[in-house]
Amino acid sequence: MNIEMIEAARRRLNGHLRQTPLLSSPFLDEIAGRKVYIKPECLQHTGSFKARGAWSAISAMEPAVREAGVMAYSSGNHAQGVAWAAAQHGVPSVILMPSDAPALKRANTQALGARVVLYDRETEDREAKGEELARDLNLTLVRPYDEPQVIAGQASVGLEIAEQAAEAGISRADVLVCCGGGGLTSGIALALEAHAPGLRARPVEPEGFEDVARSLDRGEIARNSRMGGSICDAIVTPQPGNLTFPIMQRLCGPGLVVSDDEALYAMAQAFLRLKLVAEPGGAVALAAALCRKDQIEAEAVIAVISGGNVDPVMFTRSLITHAEAV
Amino acid sequence: MNIEMIEAARRRLNGHLRQTPLLSSPFLDEIAGRKVYIKPECLQHTGSFKARGAWSAISAMEPAVREAGVMAYSSGNHAQGVAWAAAQHGVPSVILMPSDAPALKRANTQALGARVVLYDRETEDREAKGEELARDLNLTLVRPYDEPQVIAGQASVGLEIAEQAAEAGISRADVLVCCGGGGLTSGIALALEAHAPGLRARPVEPEGFEDVARSLDRGEIARNSRMGGSICDAIVTPQPGNLTFPIMQRLCGPGLVVSDDEALYAMAQAFLRLKLVAEPGGAVALAAALCRKDQIEAEAVIAVISGGNVDPVMFTRSLITHAEAV
Repeated sequence: MNIEMIEAARRRLNGHLRQTPLLSSPFLDEIAGRKVYIKPECLQHTGSFKARGAWSAISAMEPAVREAGVMAYSSGNHAQGVAWAAAQHGVPSVILMPSDAPALKRANTQALGARVVLYDRETEDREAKGEELARDLNLTLVRPYDEPQVIAGQASVGLEIAEQAAEAGISRADVLVCCGGGGLTSGIALALEAHAPGLRARPVEPEGFEDVARSLDRGEIARNSRMGGSICDAIVTPQPGNLTFPIMQRLCGPGLVVSDDEALYAMAQAFLRLKLVAEPGGAVALAAALCRKDQIEAEAVIAVISGGNVDPVMFTRSLITHAEAV
Repeated sequence: MNIEMIEAARRRLNGHLRQTPLLSSPFLDEIAGRKVYIKPECLQHTGSFKARGAWSAISAMEPAVREAGVMAYSSGNHAQGVAWAAAQHGVPSVILMPSDAPALKRANTQALGARVVLYDRETEDREAKGEELARDLNLTLVRPYDEPQVIAGQASVGLEIAEQAAEAGISRADVLVCCGGGGLTSGIALALEAHAPGLRARPVEPEGFEDVARSLDRGEIARNSRMGGSICDAIVTPQPGNLTFPIMQRLCGPGLVVSDDEALYAMAQAFLRLKLVAEPGGAVALAAALCRKDQIEAEAVIAVISGGNVDPVMFTRSLITHAEAV
């Protein structure tokens, strides 16, 4: 992984992926007690940043390999990203999804042209099952985060943040990133290292699934004790990646942890103040900006909203719980 | 009104207002039966395009006039736009709002620094009351649409659409615009006339309040028979403006009309497919793109989502009615 690889990925993405804007609201600044900027990747194609990494990986394949087809295992956002990027490249895709993935993500993945195969998140090893499927069908597996070309694609978010921060006159800030396996976080960290050294990436995770925060704290990879029970389905992974962890260890600030209720609160604030739809796992970085002010020293924060693929029932729950009195 | 005035307004807006992106979704294309592009002005400062016209008008005032303060009458979006632009210029503002305006709009207008005065939408003449207030307090009235500098500010949406359409290779399209008094519609029409002659603006209104569609059809200004009873509060006005109507008559295609229920459906689609929060009046153009396909001949449409300032209860209603089965 190096910055040349990231910049090459961005050139492949150019014209196919969206450059998302950098937003803000005086109401959020007031809650956070500092200037808050938002990088809304929920506005990306397929509703999450995952389309970037998927496009990067698929566009980097040898044509003959790509044409045989690709596969992925994913709770839903990587699934949609791979399904979309494969369809745009005109190649088939098979997606292995957990049986408890939000209905919207499953329906969208199928509508985007993929064949969906389900597995049980609690009892089955998705990596083993994915590799078996790939082998049997001669598909190339696109890993969700521990894959250099995927990290390089996600890193394009960091390149955009570096440019947009410079335009907005932001030279020092913590960049809060919703973190599962660490593909987005490590990619952003690499891009910032090269182009915005005053900006520091920090992973944000849901309470009870803070494997990255604990791993950074201990200096070695720690696993989550369970895989179910969070509403932040998009960012629940067993442990940081073997590729992503050393990058995060070298470049990231300490991890931040928020509760499910704080994620719902951040979703309601994104609705009220930004007119954006965030999913729980995509809202944890904004939640940390709003609810963990004592653990942030930087005068400004940039929070990535990583995805917006949320079921209406869950979204309504955030409004009923946290926006009713408005 | 001429294109030089519009381009001068854009230069004053530059660096203060957001350039909103041009979005799309294959799911919306499928519903509409043609390519659908979205110009999401709900992502503008204050949650609607109104911040553009307010900034344009306030920034064009003589400094001594501006410093005495400004006032506006508005159902809520123009109110927030004027309150925000006044505060950014460091001058006081007084806003006259209907007593039935959404709570969120009223609260935001006050939080943005304005003094709010209420009036009854059914029984009081807001223009007379507004002019009286302006005279008594030595404030300069910023009219919501029948004011050249306001139209010039809203026209910046049209300049951006012209550029973004060219970049996306769109040379012919209907540009559907949520229409109240016609400030945004006439501004966009003027910008397109100068910079994208293959693109044609068309006003979209809620059923029962289609004064602009009827006026265009008859060739003379027609009034609405009532002012209350629509959920599309942002775009219910008594009649087209004296300045805006001749522009729309010269440049716009026929008006389109959608039901309240179709506006709620479009809000749900914006949630599902674009991850955007649209208010009912801000969703009517998208509703027309999705539900009036037989009245559109162009191979592509660009629908402006004009605002996203919606109460949680109304938003939840759109999800329960139109997104539950997903």
